[in-house]
Amino acid sequence: VFFSQMGWGDLGAFGEPSKETPNLDQMAAEGMLFLDFYTASPLCSPSRAALLTGRLPVRNGFYTTNAHARNAYTPQDIVGGIQDSELLLPELLKKAGYINKIIGKWHLGHRPQFHPLRHGFDEWFGSPNCHFGPYDNREHPNIPVYRDWEMIGRYYEDFKIDPKTGEANLTQLYLQEALDFISKQQASQQPFFLYWAIDATHAPVYASKQFLGTSQRGLYGDAVREIDDSIGRILRHLQQLGISENTFVFFTSDNGAALISAPKQGGSNGPFLCGKQTTFEGGMREPAIAWWPGHIPAGGVSHQLGNVMDLFSTSLSLAGLQPPSDRQIDGIDLLPVILQGKLIDRPIFYYRGNEMMAVRVGLYKAHYWTWSNSWEEHGKGTDFCPGQSVPGVTTHTQEEHTHLPLLFHLGRDPGEKFPLSFDSEEYQQAMERISGIVQQHKDNLVPGEPQLNVCDKAVMNWSPPGCEKLGKCLKVPESDPQKCSWPH
Amino acid sequence: VFFSQMGWGDLGAFGEPSKETPNLDQMAAEGMLFLDFYTASPLCSPSRAALLTGRLPVRNGFYTTNAHARNAYTPQDIVGGIQDSELLLPELLKKAGYINKIIGKWHLGHRPQFHPLRHGFDEWFGSPNCHFGPYDNREHPNIPVYRDWEMIGRYYEDFKIDPKTGEANLTQLYLQEALDFISKQQASQQPFFLYWAIDATHAPVYASKQFLGTSQRGLYGDAVREIDDSIGRILRHLQQLGISENTFVFFTSDNGAALISAPKQGGSNGPFLCGKQTTFEGGMREPAIAWWPGHIPAGGVSHQLGNVMDLFSTSLSLAGLQPPSDRQIDGIDLLPVILQGKLIDRPIFYYRGNEMMAVRVGLYKAHYWTWSNSWEEHGKGTDFCPGQSVPGVTTHTQEEHTHLPLLFHLGRDPGEKFPLSFDSEEYQQAMERISGIVQQHKDNLVPGEPQLNVCDKAVMNWSPPGCEKLGKCLKVPESDPQKCSWPH
Repeated sequence: VFFSQMGWGDLGAFGEPSKETPNLDQMAAEGMLFLDFYTASPLCSPSRAALLTGRLPVRNGFYTTNAHARNAYTPQDIVGGIQDSELLLPELLKKAGYINKIIGKWHLGHRPQFHPLRHGFDEWFGSPNCHFGPYDNREHPNIPVYRDWEMIGRYYEDFKIDPKTGEANLTQLYLQEALDFISKQQASQQPFFLYWAIDATHAPVYASKQFLGTSQRGLYGDAVREIDDSIGRILRHLQQLGISENTFVFFTSDNGAALISAPKQGGSNGPFLCGKQTTFEGGMREPAIAWWPGHIPAGGVSHQLGNVMDLFSTSLSLAGLQPPSDRQIDGIDLLPVILQGKLIDRPIFYYRGNEMMAVRVGLYKAHYWTWSNSWEEHGKGTDFCPGQSVPGVTTHTQEEHTHLPLLFHLGRDPGEKFPLSFDSEEYQQAMERISGIVQQHKDNLVPGEPQLNVCDKAVMNWSPPGCEKLGKCLKVPESDPQKCSWPH
Repeated sequence: VFFSQMGWGDLGAFGEPSKETPNLDQMAAEGMLFLDFYTASPLCSPSRAALLTGRLPVRNGFYTTNAHARNAYTPQDIVGGIQDSELLLPELLKKAGYINKIIGKWHLGHRPQFHPLRHGFDEWFGSPNCHFGPYDNREHPNIPVYRDWEMIGRYYEDFKIDPKTGEANLTQLYLQEALDFISKQQASQQPFFLYWAIDATHAPVYASKQFLGTSQRGLYGDAVREIDDSIGRILRHLQQLGISENTFVFFTSDNGAALISAPKQGGSNGPFLCGKQTTFEGGMREPAIAWWPGHIPAGGVSHQLGNVMDLFSTSLSLAGLQPPSDRQIDGIDLLPVILQGKLIDRPIFYYRGNEMMAVRVGLYKAHYWTWSNSWEEHGKGTDFCPGQSVPGVTTHTQEEHTHLPLLFHLGRDPGEKFPLSFDSEEYQQAMERISGIVQQHKDNLVPGEPQLNVCDKAVMNWSPPGCEKLGKCLKVPESDPQKCSWPH
């Protein structure tokens, strides 16, 4: 279960004041809450690539070198995507007999060679890109929705999203797909991996009619409530089929709440600083819950530093498989944490594009670079930290601190507001340890070939496979490859 | 149970990321969590006076008219205090046969006529003022600690607080007092009211040796952990004595976390704006839990707009008493909310001194005045909103918006970052309702005689009753009454 930009503070169990997520709160009460869980990137595509490869985006190629420390993703004109050389979780799970399905947003490239069914998935219902639109089908084609190998329609045209009211029944479609898939696998006693990558909380935010207007939090809250309700249905379905004790369920999000779209289209990062696109806690610390009745003690809470990449290693471990040994894997197996309450000492690296911006070791977080976004973008109204401003920290120019990193103690100061004094003993001692870890990380880092540098209008979703049958093929413009522009 | 400036976000149940309050979280799980509960003032003394009188500070006299919209309290040189004309909760409970005890900080005046045993309490262990110090006993006497009518020592001298390490065993003393008092009343089958007004989380923050260094959150977290542990002991004590089903316990705080003292001496207001001293949500929204096994359904959550003044009315109701009918009472009886899950429509008024700064009606909050603090104070490093800055909202001059209040929707925007557009239909409709409520409030308001205007060095705790026996009387300087200076 993987959500699009739901923030750390969006769940009742994580202190959202409207407390409107009874099913997720119940999931936490029956399972284990991770309070120090991170994504591998403050943006969606790289985060998803990291989840499925167990590797940092800077290794698996989901980053750009067009400019320093820029967030890049897979819009429709991106030329790149997930490389064949990467080994994805479903490819590996296949070897253990698993059937793999992705429901929702793929976001690892939309050209034929990047298709999820070419990378280990057996089934797909969803789309390759974000559901932005509606487009005119001249400058931009509307985003296709796929069933398995072929498109079966496009957003706004065939899969309605009302841009005015935010009404769309997509979450219900994704829910039904999930329930049906689970039933089918249970009936055939087939081990399965379901990657439920829904995106109702990603702008443009949407909810089904029966959820519209039901939240104190407006449309965004309606979407959260529908997702919460869906999770409850999925978990009950597993219980009713009698397979809940054989099914490991993990809930988390791909990046922090998009405060730039708040309050209508963006969620909450609770007490943390800034949001999506940044390497402050609000951009990368995620709500996370593990659920596995009969195995995970109810009501558990873990302070393990976790990362979405760990789901790669943990899933392999659950399937009795070893992670690939021919490459660096950044994820760790969380089973000892989840089942035996262990704490594994490991750092968290906060990357923005090609730059390691920050690192967390224990309760300390050192910023080697700080940047919210440029003055130019900020002047246009792009604000990743609305209402927040920490002098010298939420900087609007890229500030290098590599020689004297800004250090925060996230226990005393989870909001990253009070940097430690450079001449304190605490600073010296903490940085000594951190410097060694960073040095080792950099020494061993072999960056992958960046895949998010080139954009071309010709590669957009003009004529996806299956468009002929539907009469929905659009004319492909002439190829004109350009360096993609990544302003953040 | 009443805490000194613990913030909304300081409890695990309210989303504090270190989740170090297992006993309070358990209390919430067994009882009812109030997510929209407020204090009557963003500062301690007025808030406490409101709790015990059921009346807004502007009515009960706990405010100043020395300047506009200033927070005032009862430092040692304050001349005023609680007036005899005010009827306090313990005075009324006495009529129903209750024995009343206050443990901890009184803060309603320290001169003889304001003594808690003259206002309905039967027993007292604690001090009249904050535990600031250590003082030199020349310019300022150290604050006395009383047992009932007489002082039994002074802070720092007889009741140690180590200013360097923050070590003090006061919470343990207060805990033991509470346990003993409860045991005694249970043994004599005596109905009782215990006002456990501890202040370990008020600067200078302290904790006992066994709690020092045990929290991820530093000294402040150590204090919270000790309080949490103490609450657990008190609740278990009630259960072991078999009186938990006859004892209504309510936990809340007197004002929002003092961000000015963060991170070492101040807590967290979660996702809310600013802190203590302000009328933003961070200054007045409080953690709140009601516990009464066998009566309150476990795991309840209420969005009732509540206020510390409601504890006055609710306690009277529990004792079968009527609130006084000869004066305006601002508190409401919460029993229908707690026992039957009802929601009572009522506004929350946010006062700072003599000014109604804001009002909440439903999910809307209208600011009639905004002010964080003055540029002058801010320049000296006094920051009530560290790391936060909302243009036009967290203003450093007192800004009047009475003709066009700033309106926020606290469901969509709990952090008060996105004022509604003045020309929106939503603004018009909400303000129409709010304006009527404010007009009615102002029409009916008869401000009390302000008690916090005059300060005089001669009234300080030089020679409290009992000082002779201890040889701790200090020379009283000549009387020199002055207007108190209230910079905030």
